Amino acid sequence: MVLYVIGLGLGDEKDVTIKGYEAIKKSNKVYLEAYTSLLGGSTSTESLEKFYEKKIIIADREMVESGCEEMIEESREQDISFLVVGDPFGATTHTDLVIRAKEKGVPTKVIHNASIMNAIGCCGLQLYSYGQTISMVFFTDSYKPDSFYDRVKINMQSGMHTLCLLDIKVKEQSIENMLRGRKIYEPPRFMTVNQCIEQLLEIEDIRKEGIYSKDSFGIGLSRVGQDDQQIISGTFEELKDVDFGEPLHSFIICGDMHFIEKEYFETFRIKKN
Amino acid sequence: MVLYVIGLGLGDEKDVTIKGYEAIKKSNKVYLEAYTSLLGGSTSTESLEKFYEKKIIIADREMVESGCEEMIEESREQDISFLVVGDPFGATTHTDLVIRAKEKGVPTKVIHNASIMNAIGCCGLQLYSYGQTISMVFFTDSYKPDSFYDRVKINMQSGMHTLCLLDIKVKEQSIENMLRGRKIYEPPRFMTVNQCIEQLLEIEDIRKEGIYSKDSFGIGLSRVGQDDQQIISGTFEELKDVDFGEPLHSFIICGDMHFIEKEYFETFRIKKN
Repeated sequence: MVLYVIGLGLGDEKDVTIKGYEAIKKSNKVYLEAYTSLLGGSTSTESLEKFYEKKIIIADREMVESGCEEMIEESREQDISFLVVGDPFGATTHTDLVIRAKEKGVPTKVIHNASIMNAIGCCGLQLYSYGQTISMVFFTDSYKPDSFYDRVKINMQSGMHTLCLLDIKVKEQSIENMLRGRKIYEPPRFMTVNQCIEQLLEIEDIRKEGIYSKDSFGIGLSRVGQDDQQIISGTFEELKDVDFGEPLHSFIICGDMHFIEKEYFETFRIKKN
Repeated sequence: MVLYVIGLGLGDEKDVTIKGYEAIKKSNKVYLEAYTSLLGGSTSTESLEKFYEKKIIIADREMVESGCEEMIEESREQDISFLVVGDPFGATTHTDLVIRAKEKGVPTKVIHNASIMNAIGCCGLQLYSYGQTISMVFFTDSYKPDSFYDRVKINMQSGMHTLCLLDIKVKEQSIENMLRGRKIYEPPRFMTVNQCIEQLLEIEDIRKEGIYSKDSFGIGLSRVGQDDQQIISGTFEELKDVDFGEPLHSFIICGDMHFIEKEYFETFRIKKN
């Protein structure tokens, strides 16, 4: 039997491919990875269940981080689908899943789909001209990891664009609840473009290497691949207070723009009052 | 009415999304962009026509480069689908199409899909750790563009991986036929992993900056996203003579590998005799 690892794309239940849909329909069990990403907009587990006519089992952080051993074993006896928002290889954990299943002799089939890593092309900056992607995590008073700054520095010095993936917190425990072993989880949180810009500027203020400033060009995006996606370009300062609405948000720090890229950038330029 | 710009993904006719399929079904005309990429494996225009039950009009180089004006105009009166292998924003020309349609007040809807830019995650190297992508074009005796070398240099110096997209020549005219205005086209050609490695080493031999060598690590991939995809890792020397079979091929120059990436690399390591 086969373990299907299926990308759902970025929008709703109809963004699955026909190949993916057929695999889901013939699977005995369907898991949904709901820890490294979120379903788009109004899409819910229920809307997936209704459309696929299948019960969906949530694979949460504990299950995914502990390696989905049970699921791999089940795939020896029956067809199993493991659904992932975006493309299966957006997150390291899923690469690991496929490799371990392979090592255990369990046949896997990966069904690709769009992810933010390629759909970001919608803003007009060429995919070829991005450097390393950074992940921006929520700062706390005592924890402000700034290793992204060095990556942005390399990108900027070579004129490359930087895609910033913004933190989401799903099923997080407060420190108190964790210490007390209480399985009580905080409500999901996602980082906004505004928070990302603030954190970027906060670290520039500390490092002071002049890699970017409030006058640098950026592009804020929300709900990429969904019907109500938003793309707004401008300086960090201009974008700092724009309301990008519902999750997920992404941000691009523009490197050197080719004149055609510059044209697209202007197309999406924030309206000034 | 709407101009749908629809990614077909990397495999066969069933790699379209359900949303894309529904748009195709209700379109009055369906164009297939067959110039910047190739349909996967045994997939043909005919197999698409059969599956979608729609006549497919080939949008060739001339049509795409001249801007598809007619198609944009048609979209004012009727629903039109423009199909693209991979994701619509893999190639600059399609970004341009969407922006121009928008300027003319023609509603467009982009339906994303997988492309090599994200599906490449299948080899286990993290998408986050790639630098700029390079395009390797066919060298001729008098034309050996080496600007890629500087990009690889930047990537390597910062430990980033480099994805090399390999040239395809579809509907090319020989210089003689072009000069004589004869619309006779050469058979399609695609670059192999082997040719890519040869050209990489040829330029290193000229530039001699020691950016990579025959002992550098690389990963050759063919037919990514298709049932018979191949992934083989090794040194450039080891991979130089490996037969990767049918198109399309891609190549990755490995930057610094994290220990988990190294593990995946070994999983795909070429069998030594």
